Amino acid sequence: MTGPRYPQRIADLPSTVPFVGPEVQERERGAPFRARIGANESVFGPSPQAVDAMAEAARDVWKYPDPTNHDLRHALAARLNTTPDHVIVGAGIDGLLGSLVRLLVAPGDPVVTSDGAYPTFNYHVTGYGGVLHKVPYDNDHEDLRTLIDKAHEVKAKLIYFANPDNPMGSWVSGATIEALLDALPDGTLLALDEAYIEFAPEGTAPQIDPEDPRVIRFRTFSKAYGMAGARVGYGIAASDLVSSFNKVRNHFGMSRIAQAGALAALEDQAWLDEVVAKVATARERIGDIARAHGLTPLPSATNFVTVDCGEDGAFAKRVLDALVADGVFVRMPFVAPGNRAIRVGTGRKEDLDVFETALPHALKAARE
Amino acid sequence: MTGPRYPQRIADLPSTVPFVGPEVQERERGAPFRARIGANESVFGPSPQAVDAMAEAARDVWKYPDPTNHDLRHALAARLNTTPDHVIVGAGIDGLLGSLVRLLVAPGDPVVTSDGAYPTFNYHVTGYGGVLHKVPYDNDHEDLRTLIDKAHEVKAKLIYFANPDNPMGSWVSGATIEALLDALPDGTLLALDEAYIEFAPEGTAPQIDPEDPRVIRFRTFSKAYGMAGARVGYGIAASDLVSSFNKVRNHFGMSRIAQAGALAALEDQAWLDEVVAKVATARERIGDIARAHGLTPLPSATNFVTVDCGEDGAFAKRVLDALVADGVFVRMPFVAPGNRAIRVGTGRKEDLDVFETALPHALKAARE
Repeated sequence: MTGPRYPQRIADLPSTVPFVGPEVQERERGAPFRARIGANESVFGPSPQAVDAMAEAARDVWKYPDPTNHDLRHALAARLNTTPDHVIVGAGIDGLLGSLVRLLVAPGDPVVTSDGAYPTFNYHVTGYGGVLHKVPYDNDHEDLRTLIDKAHEVKAKLIYFANPDNPMGSWVSGATIEALLDALPDGTLLALDEAYIEFAPEGTAPQIDPEDPRVIRFRTFSKAYGMAGARVGYGIAASDLVSSFNKVRNHFGMSRIAQAGALAALEDQAWLDEVVAKVATARERIGDIARAHGLTPLPSATNFVTVDCGEDGAFAKRVLDALVADGVFVRMPFVAPGNRAIRVGTGRKEDLDVFETALPHALKAARE
Repeated sequence: MTGPRYPQRIADLPSTVPFVGPEVQERERGAPFRARIGANESVFGPSPQAVDAMAEAARDVWKYPDPTNHDLRHALAARLNTTPDHVIVGAGIDGLLGSLVRLLVAPGDPVVTSDGAYPTFNYHVTGYGGVLHKVPYDNDHEDLRTLIDKAHEVKAKLIYFANPDNPMGSWVSGATIEALLDALPDGTLLALDEAYIEFAPEGTAPQIDPEDPRVIRFRTFSKAYGMAGARVGYGIAASDLVSSFNKVRNHFGMSRIAQAGALAALEDQAWLDEVVAKVATARERIGDIARAHGLTPLPSATNFVTVDCGEDGAFAKRVLDALVADGVFVRMPFVAPGNRAIRVGTGRKEDLDVFETALPHALKAARE
């Protein structure tokens, strides 16, 4: 009896997981976390209207979902002042990035990203046999100018650029991005990840014609809308690119409950505004806590604050490990020099109380 | 401004959709269907315990799902009398088939299926550049012996075989499958789709060691469990194959709500038994209605009855179109000779009342 024959490219793939989930860590440590502020989730939760819509949809869950995601795409298009043929919905930005890479990247094709940016994008590129070219962050910012230069050099099919950035929390103005679009190489698509855009200052989102063939932008219900567990992301792009997703996507892949929840969440602007205000308050407090212990909070346009621990990656890792051991779920940037910091999510008062109490102990442990 | 550069293989792909959803048809006809019995959904709905679990999970939907699907995989393994490393969970069998094809099928690789079997499998094979070799049904049954012969001939990477079969409703005994496993070519994986297994007679599921490297079997919460809208399927296979899915899958792709719902549904055996009994009763009634109008219901081990309309595909299509125009959502096999039939889902009394009333009019219209 022999097993299946994997193509060599698949056999060679590592069994990597982009992220270890907090549930996995909780099972390993044998206790729940006291504060869950490590995955850039919205502890403030989803709109109650979205919760009601999902509970209602659960009763009808015997029906397959609408494979065209009609209602949600139409609502998003209206919100974005465009037409539904410019909107693609998928199982989180993660799922959409996977489809995008599949559409564009053949084995050996070059792709450009920042060294230390979103690992799930890299996972997909590697998974489809693409070749990643990484450029360094510039002063904790993803550097679009250098990404574009690298794309010219390697003839990249795709550039990944997040604004605001995860894991550093930094951002550039929309005008900066607009000014660089004409510098993109012919035939290079810019994947602009705007997962955190709702938290960013006015003017952070560039004005881009949805029909512009050079850019696809991604947004999500996982962050400000508080629905990470439902898996709903969307892309805005030229209609030709949007329709190309239909060649490869899992047409019936979007949960009926998730679609209903996202639709209801989109209609509750008051909840979104409230969450954004709470996040801003929590960012301030994380900054205060960090400074009170001699650490440096980096400016953030997201729902987390990346806190420079003032030493090297090994030190920050010791701080992180001590926090995790003490029941505080946080994460940290993977790559130097970002890995001198830990990344702390905007929690409720009680979550940040736990962090505030735990931090001095963690710093002490890290210095021993 | 130029657009993205698609690899030729992607550019050549058709923008096909495996199925048109009933919502799409309802928008086109400008009215809802009076009976929704065309997508092999379970009109009897999900377990109330599953509905409650999903409503509860909706409140916590700000949390990302567990990327390891730990609780659900463990519960499934216990139910299947195996270990969790033999269980992979995904966004419906559709999603799992996509990942499986990606794992095994490089461009040009041969794959074997039955002509007229599940089109979504074919969609994935074509999407990854595989070459489909189709063998005919044998007397409305997928014919595993001939599929295996063809796999030897073309050196197939993969055989797709559904038992019970969709769209014909037919089945073979588990013993028949067991007896043929040793005839599989070395290095050919049998993908055994058991989506409808809960409706089938005792003995339809073969006894296969989960560690057997020659087979992966798929099951789902979309049919008997009444959760098609939640997108939860699972595969049972050798641990090496299961862990290979971790190389390519969207790790955070399974909705938290769906996982909670499936777990609760699995625990409500009484509901499952009740649904299976109702489906058996409804199958009888569909048979009676068909015979009363001179049509021939085919034997079924599923939650639908394929009704031979006694003439050719064009005639059956006219019957189908008339039913759809009259508000009865049904579908039909795509390929001759199966397309001499329409496929009628097991509905509640009120659904089948609508079908019973509409059928004679549809037959009359088709004969005019």
